[in-house]
Amino acid sequence: MIEPKILKGFRDSLPKAETYKQTLIDTIKNTFRLNGFSPIDTPALEYSDILLGKGGGETDKQVFRFKDNGDRDIALRFDHTVPLARFSALNYENLVFPLKCYQISKVWRGEKPQKGRFREFTQCDFDILGSDSIYSDFQVLFLIYKCFKNLNVDNFKIHISHRGLLNEYLKTKNIANDDNEILKILDKLKKIGIDKVKESLYQTGLSEMDVNSILDFISVKDINELINLIGMENEYLSLLNDVFDQIKLLNLSDYFVLDTSITRGLDYYTGIVFETFLSGVEFMGSVCSGGRYDNLSSLYINKKISGVGGSIGLDRLISALTELKKCSFDNIKSADFLITNQKWAFKLLDLLNKNNISSDIYCGNKSLGHQFAYAQQLSIPFVVFSYSEEKDKYSIKNIKKMEIYDDISFDFILGLSNDKT
Amino acid sequence: MIEPKILKGFRDSLPKAETYKQTLIDTIKNTFRLNGFSPIDTPALEYSDILLGKGGGETDKQVFRFKDNGDRDIALRFDHTVPLARFSALNYENLVFPLKCYQISKVWRGEKPQKGRFREFTQCDFDILGSDSIYSDFQVLFLIYKCFKNLNVDNFKIHISHRGLLNEYLKTKNIANDDNEILKILDKLKKIGIDKVKESLYQTGLSEMDVNSILDFISVKDINELINLIGMENEYLSLLNDVFDQIKLLNLSDYFVLDTSITRGLDYYTGIVFETFLSGVEFMGSVCSGGRYDNLSSLYINKKISGVGGSIGLDRLISALTELKKCSFDNIKSADFLITNQKWAFKLLDLLNKNNISSDIYCGNKSLGHQFAYAQQLSIPFVVFSYSEEKDKYSIKNIKKMEIYDDISFDFILGLSNDKT
Repeated sequence: MIEPKILKGFRDSLPKAETYKQTLIDTIKNTFRLNGFSPIDTPALEYSDILLGKGGGETDKQVFRFKDNGDRDIALRFDHTVPLARFSALNYENLVFPLKCYQISKVWRGEKPQKGRFREFTQCDFDILGSDSIYSDFQVLFLIYKCFKNLNVDNFKIHISHRGLLNEYLKTKNIANDDNEILKILDKLKKIGIDKVKESLYQTGLSEMDVNSILDFISVKDINELINLIGMENEYLSLLNDVFDQIKLLNLSDYFVLDTSITRGLDYYTGIVFETFLSGVEFMGSVCSGGRYDNLSSLYINKKISGVGGSIGLDRLISALTELKKCSFDNIKSADFLITNQKWAFKLLDLLNKNNISSDIYCGNKSLGHQFAYAQQLSIPFVVFSYSEEKDKYSIKNIKKMEIYDDISFDFILGLSNDKT
Repeated sequence: MIEPKILKGFRDSLPKAETYKQTLIDTIKNTFRLNGFSPIDTPALEYSDILLGKGGGETDKQVFRFKDNGDRDIALRFDHTVPLARFSALNYENLVFPLKCYQISKVWRGEKPQKGRFREFTQCDFDILGSDSIYSDFQVLFLIYKCFKNLNVDNFKIHISHRGLLNEYLKTKNIANDDNEILKILDKLKKIGIDKVKESLYQTGLSEMDVNSILDFISVKDINELINLIGMENEYLSLLNDVFDQIKLLNLSDYFVLDTSITRGLDYYTGIVFETFLSGVEFMGSVCSGGRYDNLSSLYINKKISGVGGSIGLDRLISALTELKKCSFDNIKSADFLITNQKWAFKLLDLLNKNNISSDIYCGNKSLGHQFAYAQQLSIPFVVFSYSEEKDKYSIKNIKKMEIYDDISFDFILGLSNDKT
């Protein structure tokens, strides 16, 4: 016998939990579709040099990389953005730009498993390629808002900044330190808190005045404060201004906030950047992040394909909703009806199917009592357990109310399926 | 610059093709759900000894297997059946049996790429675990029928046999040769044809009489012929008899056929086995295969968990439909409406979204003519290109008819979305 163990950081998903997850995915997919985004698919495995082309040292260490039987150096994708850039370069001639696309599937990272972090997880990516227009930046932000609304997650805030702002600010303040180093420290603010950020900034050798300047910058709360602080208009500010104008126009100010501490660690961002937090569990990290990455495709093609997009981390979202006690799947039913193990079962199943009503047939030899218990465990509300061909009538048990309905017509069964009792 | 190449045997899926594929998946998922099957999910990566526990030499060579950073011997799954057996053993205490579950996702095999065969492909598996009952065998067969019906694939035939029949027959004919060797030859019948099967049988050292006996066996066309040939009733025959009785009862005889040449190569089948062929492209192989595998879980648990299930090979199905010219996605629209790049665009998008109507916003700075061309390329039927706030009226272009509709109300737009012109 082989021990049925599973790899650390990997998980099985059981029927009720997976049904819940699939419901979220269906909602997200439908939102993407309603907003004009089409699905694409790329391979899970790619040549390593494609995936790691612009990766930093961190990513390299985390990737599942190996030689295949043909001695090719290959790896499992660790995100969808890099494969998308490769995809857009390889299929350039067969794509219509601006390309609005989405991909919902697994990615793999060998990072240390911890709460809400796994080695295999589902990313829901949405991107617009081939457009510099602010319409694409705003469309991406609007899409995030629509997704969370449609998921009935109400207490969310999308934090927005622009990757170029900090550099601009450091320049005006004559702070000559390494921008990227500062940027990476600020990126950790929500995880480690303001005191540790301060400490880390001092450790880079910055003066007290410079550290305070940086803290002033990241504590800015709206566009006007930011204009006051930077003391001049620039293209980044004007872009953010236009975005917040659209937000106001659509009455969405409750869901968006300027947050200059958002920088996104990854090298490839070049413009607007955003993260999404659920109120009360901000410490769990962003559940939907992204931004503009205008130079990524140029790694693979001698053409500029601007990109802006984001990704919903579905597993982290489910962890966050669980933490908020907003995720319950114990009562998800596997079907509307259970039909007991009788010869006429498949005829009734077929009739119910044709009326778009789901129905399970008990596929064992156990007693009727056992079959009722099975229905209860699977949260199936009704069991059809007897049929008189002569009368064309059924007998049904309502599992929750513990009631028996005799001499029931098929039409009555159709009605029951809409009954939430 | 890095050449944007893709691994041999792997594919990108472009928007229209992927939209088509997702539509098939949605139909299959919905059919599973209507029949009381719930989704589950298992990791893409498992310990190699788990996956290869009962694999033959062929499987071993085909698997993507490697050492991870922690020096663990791991591999990508090559099917869903073996991981499901491991899943049922590991989660035994938390599952309700009989378990009806499905899993639609990728599997990987390093086999030589050829027409309709890839190294990464999507399998739609459905299984019933923990039941010996004939209800489960028939439910699985019925589910295949429902899937292809709902996919609007009409010319299909499900070929059924029982794995034990051949052994029984060889015994009665006193043919003492290796059953498995004969079984593997017969399994190739649809690929290599009867003459080559005959030749291979002779090569095993069988006498002319024995070869003819075997050819008699595999040319049997229905249950009665089979009873005549074997000359006695046995448990395998009686099971098949009951299955064909149910098929008759449900008027499905056009879709099912007894086919004693079906054996399924894989070692783990123990009972009923089946394959599904589309008329006219039988040479492309089975698009949905499976059977009963009662001992598979015993590799991982000291309990008997009987299993019966099948798998739709989605990529091969699409190849077969393409060959039959029944698969067209060139005209799949990415949205019902395109809204041109104007300030009021997101307001209208939001209104359409709330009415469940899909709508794209043009996210570039190109001319109106260019935007009309974009709509045409994406098969979007209507473009909303102007709005008068004063009159609350829109102007729309019907792309196919090349007509302009002016002074259109929002209600008229809602009506257009149902218009198939």
